[in-house]
This record gives sequence, C-alpha cells and structure tokens, in this order.
Amino acid sequence: MAVNKPSVPKGTRDFSPEIMVKRNYIFDTIRKVFSRYGFLPLETPAMETLQTLMGKYGEEGDKLLFKVLNSGDYLSKVAPEKYEAKNSVALTSSISEKGLRYDLTVPLARFVVQYRNDITLPFKRYQIQPVWRADRPQKGRYREFYQCDVDVVGSNSLLNEMELMLITADVFEALHIPVVIKLNNRKILAGIAEIIGHADKIVDITVAIDKLDKIGLEKVNEELVSKGLPQEAIDTLQPIILLKGSNRDKLSIMREVLAASEVGLSGILEIETIFDYLDASSFSVDLEMDLTLARGLNYYTGAIIEVKAKDVNMGSICGGGRYDDLTGIFGLPDTSGVGISFGADRIYDVMMDQNLFPDQSGETTQLLFINFGAKEEAYCLPLVQKARKAGLNTEIFPDYAKMKKQMTYANKKNIPFVILVGDEEINQGKVKLKEMNSGEQYTLTIVEAIEFIKNKYV
Amino acid sequence: MAVNKPSVPKGTRDFSPEIMVKRNYIFDTIRKVFSRYGFLPLETPAMETLQTLMGKYGEEGDKLLFKVLNSGDYLSKVAPEKYEAKNSVALTSSISEKGLRYDLTVPLARFVVQYRNDITLPFKRYQIQPVWRADRPQKGRYREFYQCDVDVVGSNSLLNEMELMLITADVFEALHIPVVIKLNNRKILAGIAEIIGHADKIVDITVAIDKLDKIGLEKVNEELVSKGLPQEAIDTLQPIILLKGSNRDKLSIMREVLAASEVGLSGILEIETIFDYLDASSFSVDLEMDLTLARGLNYYTGAIIEVKAKDVNMGSICGGGRYDDLTGIFGLPDTSGVGISFGADRIYDVMMDQNLFPDQSGETTQLLFINFGAKEEAYCLPLVQKARKAGLNTEIFPDYAKMKKQMTYANKKNIPFVILVGDEEINQGKVKLKEMNSGEQYTLTIVEAIEFIKNKYV
Repeated sequence: MAVNKPSVPKGTRDFSPEIMVKRNYIFDTIRKVFSRYGFLPLETPAMETLQTLMGKYGEEGDKLLFKVLNSGDYLSKVAPEKYEAKNSVALTSSISEKGLRYDLTVPLARFVVQYRNDITLPFKRYQIQPVWRADRPQKGRYREFYQCDVDVVGSNSLLNEMELMLITADVFEALHIPVVIKLNNRKILAGIAEIIGHADKIVDITVAIDKLDKIGLEKVNEELVSKGLPQEAIDTLQPIILLKGSNRDKLSIMREVLAASEVGLSGILEIETIFDYLDASSFSVDLEMDLTLARGLNYYTGAIIEVKAKDVNMGSICGGGRYDDLTGIFGLPDTSGVGISFGADRIYDVMMDQNLFPDQSGETTQLLFINFGAKEEAYCLPLVQKARKAGLNTEIFPDYAKMKKQMTYANKKNIPFVILVGDEEINQGKVKLKEMNSGEQYTLTIVEAIEFIKNKYV
Repeated sequence: MAVNKPSVPKGTRDFSPEIMVKRNYIFDTIRKVFSRYGFLPLETPAMETLQTLMGKYGEEGDKLLFKVLNSGDYLSKVAPEKYEAKNSVALTSSISEKGLRYDLTVPLARFVVQYRNDITLPFKRYQIQPVWRADRPQKGRYREFYQCDVDVVGSNSLLNEMELMLITADVFEALHIPVVIKLNNRKILAGIAEIIGHADKIVDITVAIDKLDKIGLEKVNEELVSKGLPQEAIDTLQPIILLKGSNRDKLSIMREVLAASEVGLSGILEIETIFDYLDASSFSVDLEMDLTLARGLNYYTGAIIEVKAKDVNMGSICGGGRYDDLTGIFGLPDTSGVGISFGADRIYDVMMDQNLFPDQSGETTQLLFINFGAKEEAYCLPLVQKARKAGLNTEIFPDYAKMKKQMTYANKKNIPFVILVGDEEINQGKVKLKEMNSGEQYTLTIVEAIEFIKNKYV
C-alpha cells in the first residue's frame, strides 16, 4: 500500500518542542502579568453553536467560519426539496449546527449573558486559546492561531483602561521588547466628524492624516479634496493634521478645535483622565496620543489602544479598546467592556528577530547523564533523582548508545551540562561534570555538581 | 426580536475562572514534573486531515470523528450521481477533508513521521491539548476534553517505563493524591495464552480472574467453563488465579507457570527489570503487579500501566503502556513508543472530592484596594503598583461603588486581604489592612502590609 507523506491541513501548524518552549515563555509571562492585576482565566469550548456565531462578524465573517458536520446520518433530516436545490449555503444550515470559534470576544459575551446570575461584576477575565478562520493562508496569516485576550466587563471606570495599559507595559518590559503605546478615543473622532459635518468621511480623514510624514501637507489636503471633502472642512482640519508636541499640548489644541462638540470634548476628557491615572501609577512607557488610530472603528466606542514594537517594522503586536455594548447581541443591554488582545505570533516574530528569547527556560533540560552501561547506570540512577529533587530538569539517556550519539542528543536539545561517570568516578564516589559551552570538565560530588549548575542557570 | 438563551454545544463545557484556576493548578503541576524529567511540549493543530484520522480508531472511531465542512461552495465539487444517492457517509468524503483530532497519539505519530529527519531520538514530548469525540454525552463523558500525554518515541529501554512511573509518582505526590500504580505486561498475557493454548480467550480470562475477590474461586472457575475453556486449561490457570504475595513472590510463581513460554518469560524479565530500576531510584509509591490489567490490549505490546486513586471509587486516573509500532500506520516501521496519559477531568474530580485544592494559587488575587472616591484612589494608585511590583496579585476596585458591593466582590473572588484607606490613613501615610478570614484589621505602612501578606500567603 502506498503511504502518502503525512501533513497538516493548509494554514495550520505544528509547534515543535523547540518552538513551544519559546511560545510558552511568552504565554507564561503574559499569564503571570494578568494574574498580578487580578484577572482570572476563562476557557470556552472550541465549538460554539452556529446560532451563537452567525451574524456576529459580518457577511464575510460568516463565510470564514469553519462549520462542523452534524454527526450520524445527517442527510436523513434534510427535506427533499432543500436537498434537490444543491445549494451549499442553504444545505449548510441543515447539516451543520456547530462551528469553530472565530474569536474570543463573542464567546466572552455569550458566557457573560449565560452566567449573568452567577458572575460578579466587574468580571475580569483573560482567555488564551486558539481561534479558527477559513481565510486564505498567507505569510503571517493562519487558519488556526492563538489569541490572548484580557477584558473587564461591567465597569465604565477609566481605571480599567489605565490597568490594561499598565499590563501592556509590564508584559513588554518582562519580554524585553521596547514598545510605544498609542492611544486614541472614538469620541474624539466622532467630534471631528461633527465639527466638519462629514461623519461618513472619518476613515478617509484618518487615513489621509496618517500619511502626513510620508507625503507632506499639500498632498494630504489634495487627498482630502479627492475624497470629496469641501474646502471649508479641510480648513477646519488643518490644526488636527498638523497636530504636534507633547500629548498634553495635543490635548489643548484639540480642546480648542472641538470646543463646539460635546462628544469630542468628552473624548478629550477621557484621554486626559487616563493620562492622569497613568502619571499617578508611575507609568514609564512611551505613550503617544494618535488621532489616526482608528482600528475597529465600528466596534469601539471609547478608548482605542495599539502597541507597536519600536525596533521592528511590523504591524501592531497588541491592541484593543472599549466597546459599550458587548452583550446586547445576546439580549443583555448596557454592559460595557474594555479589553486588549496580545498577538502571540507577532510577539514571537519580534522576539526571534531581536534575539530576545533566553537560552534556557524553566522548561528546558539542564542536565543529561550519559549512559555508558548497566554498571554506570546503576550508579547514576539515584543521582539523577537527587538532581531532580534539587530542582534541576534532568535526564539520563535511556539506551547504552555510543558516546557520540548521546552528546549529539545533548547538543540538539541545547542541554548546558552533561555528567559522565566511569570507573574512576564510581570509585571516588564522584561525577565528572562537563559544561557544554566551554567544554570544561570538573570532578565533583553530586551535591557540588548540582550547586554548580544552580549557580549558573537557576 | 426574540433572543434565545445562549448555550454551548451538547457535551462541551465552559470552564469558569473558579474552575480554571483549579485546572491550571493541575496542568501546571503536571507540566513542571514533565519538564523535570526532560520532556518538552508539543502542540499540533486541532484539525487534522481526514486522511490522517480515518481508519486509526476502528469503524466506531471513524463515526465519532467530528468532521469539518469544506469552505466555499463545497457542493460544486460533488459529482451529480454521488449527490443523488443522498448517502451521508458517501457524501462526507466529498464535502469534508478535515476532522478534529480524536486523541494525541495519532497526531504524535503523524508528527514523528513528518519530521523524521529533523527530530532527535529518543523523542521525549508531552502534549496537553483538547480532543473531540462525537460520543453520546453522559456523566463524566464529554465531547471535548483535555488529554495530557507524555511519551518517549524511539527507545526500547525499560528505563523509559521506569521514568514514566517516577513521573506518575511525582505528579500525584505534588497533588497530594495517594495512589496505587498497577503494572502488567502484554507479553505475560501472551505467555498465559500460549501455555493454555487459547489465545482468543485472554480477555475472558482476565475479566474472570479480576472477579476473584468478589465472587470466589469456585465461581471464577465456573465462569471460565462457561466461556468455553477446557478443564485442563483451567487447571493450569489455578496458580495464576490464586496469585498472591509480594510482587517478587508473584514473579517467581509466574516464572514457574510460564516456564515453557519464551514470550511469557521475557514479559516477566521486563517487569523484574522495571522493579530493579525503581528500587535503584528509591521509588516509594504503592506498586502492584496485576495480571488482570489488560487495558488497550490490542494496542500495547509490552508494559501496561494504570494508576488508581486510593480513597475514591473511580476508574483509573492515569494509564498507558508500550506500543512497538507507533508510526507504522504512516509508513515508518520499527519505531517503538511508550507513554502514559493523565486524565485531567478525573484528577479534578478526585481533588474536589478529597478537598485537595489549595485555597490560594499563584493565579488568584491576594489583595484588593477598596475604592472610596477620587481622593482615596489617587492616594492608593502608587501603593497598588508597589504591591504588584512586590509580587502580590493585586486589584483596586475600578468604580466608586458602595462598600458592601466591593466587599462582596472580595468575598466572591475569595480574596484574602483588602486595604481600606480613609482620611485618617492618608494623614498618617498608612493603610488599614483587613484579613478577610479573621476579620482582623491592622494599621500599617504599605511596606509592612505587603510583608504581612507575603508572610501569610506567598
């Protein structure tokens, strides 16, 4: 029988141990910071009912949902007329009731509504799980990828925005990634739309302003004209296009420009309050008020947050904002949420690019006992357990293989120390400890060897 | 518009933060022990190709696979004759190419074969991920559940069996679950079949012997007769049925009974070697050689391992064994594997039953600052950050809510300490620390308060 070369479905990935150790380093760091701020983990099923999923991500999103076939003789329940039509979309609703989750926000909303009587508000949860999208796979876009979401549900306080920004700062400090955090507010964008009288043009405006550094003022204004904005509106926009200075400078200019817009001024007050909170908490990360930040415009209602790595040319590695009606789609109105999402794949790429992963992590093996044969093995077994009890990640090579094979194993697994034991060591009650990097060897008692490794690596 | 009460698909579960903290306690403990023994994490995609999955779990297993509909106009590729037949099984192969993984062993085998040129043998990996089965949901059986598998691929050494048993001992010691580990060997069962000349009756025999304590020798022998075993074979089986004494006693009796069976004797030698290895490693968990242990008989080829919690009436909470041809199904013959799998759901149930979860874990909040208003909040914000930097999981209530609401929040989240700050504390530069369990209150500096909590809980 011919056996095909095994493979994984298009757009999905295996994460080998070498990669997983690095990914876990990211996830564990993020989890630890989330806990430090009082957020607790939530997990929801990979499959949700299509009733929960459909209509939440737009028409395009519905198409990108992976749908799961009903079990058993699923065609027996399909009406003959319906079957004869042979229409994929129509048939799907008869043969599939479940889909794979598309993001972590809709499951959160579903959970909060389902357990509304059990949970205590504000509900501070994080969720680190994969999501699935039947997108066309391409570089950096996968059909299965992890999201790391952290949200507060049921509190309007801007303290939450501040806490999420502190979390962001702590995560990237712990990962040694220099970042700039950008902050905007949907209400300011609404205010701009209000004062120039063209609410429908707000995306065109932010896109055009964003190009100022690249194409200059004249071209920006030309672009605004080409988008159908009247000269009067463009004139009004000039101080916004040319907005400069510190964040506080920008706020005072904006306060003048938006003097006539109630919603605009409330957006400015929100940003100001967040700045004040951050100052009180000794926030020290580069923070930039950025009016061109408009991600998820139809979704966010207040703060909009985005994080970029400083030394890498890459999209945002973290982002989020406030959404005032998270749970309305499931029948629970007036519940506000604010959250951010960390992009694990991009963070991984930045850290690889900048060589930021540590050589060793708490998961990697620190010590390998070379196995020369039955006699040496018998001498080593209790020592192996001693090293483990002392907290060292320790292996003994299971087979009496050639020395070279065992040393190759140590090298491939990037194990920093090996122990070699021969007659001489057995007679002395000692071990020979070899440091792989330097090649240096030491004859020590097992206790001394353990201490030596701990001093270097733990 | 009527909004239906949201729910999750049948047989799947949400894991609330309260449950997740406990589950993570189990997973983190297991992960830590796996690392201690040099096993590294692997993750594979939730979806595998149906080519990878089908035919690996028997006919029944094929039916229990969740199959994912192809994207787009999936019916356009179905031949008219095929479509007209309206046969669910036949149509599935035309409209679905992917399924959700059913276990972690087939993905491991697929991975090892796919990356055979990149991985270093022995390949020691663990994998903690959910699997999906379209089983009829019932108490304790779910359609989505986690498996925690740890395997060594590509080494025949019995040291691996020993290491897996040491891992088992360490995991359950860390979780404070008293267990008994049962050990058998497929080769011994094969030897028994050989000497009595009825290989097809081996399951009937183990099932009957297993009832000795409950129904007595006479009834066991009657059952063997009823299963069609000749009297001569039953006579030969008597020493095995009545097998008693220490593990070493049992081994010498078995060695006599199986004297004529080469395979049987090799099974005895394997168990003996594992016992010797365990003795050398100071293994101290209750260990029982159990000839009635026959789990996965068609699958395992050597050691069979099963773990039961001592004080709970429940099936096994961990089990595994050696399988000599893991990767043959994917075209790579002669690759042996040995592994065990921890049942997270059952371990959770045992720990709930025995009240073994700690009150606090590294993930839960240790300190809540009550928020009385803007002035107190401004005083508290830097102190909140101080507590976090000192390593305490700390929250400040985000809203100026009534004291009672905030204290309820602390109680529901099981937060052991709250800090209350009023004018008096602000004037003194201090905080009032309240211990929730005892109700006792202390006026302290923030540094003293942090030390107080750390001494109690960290």
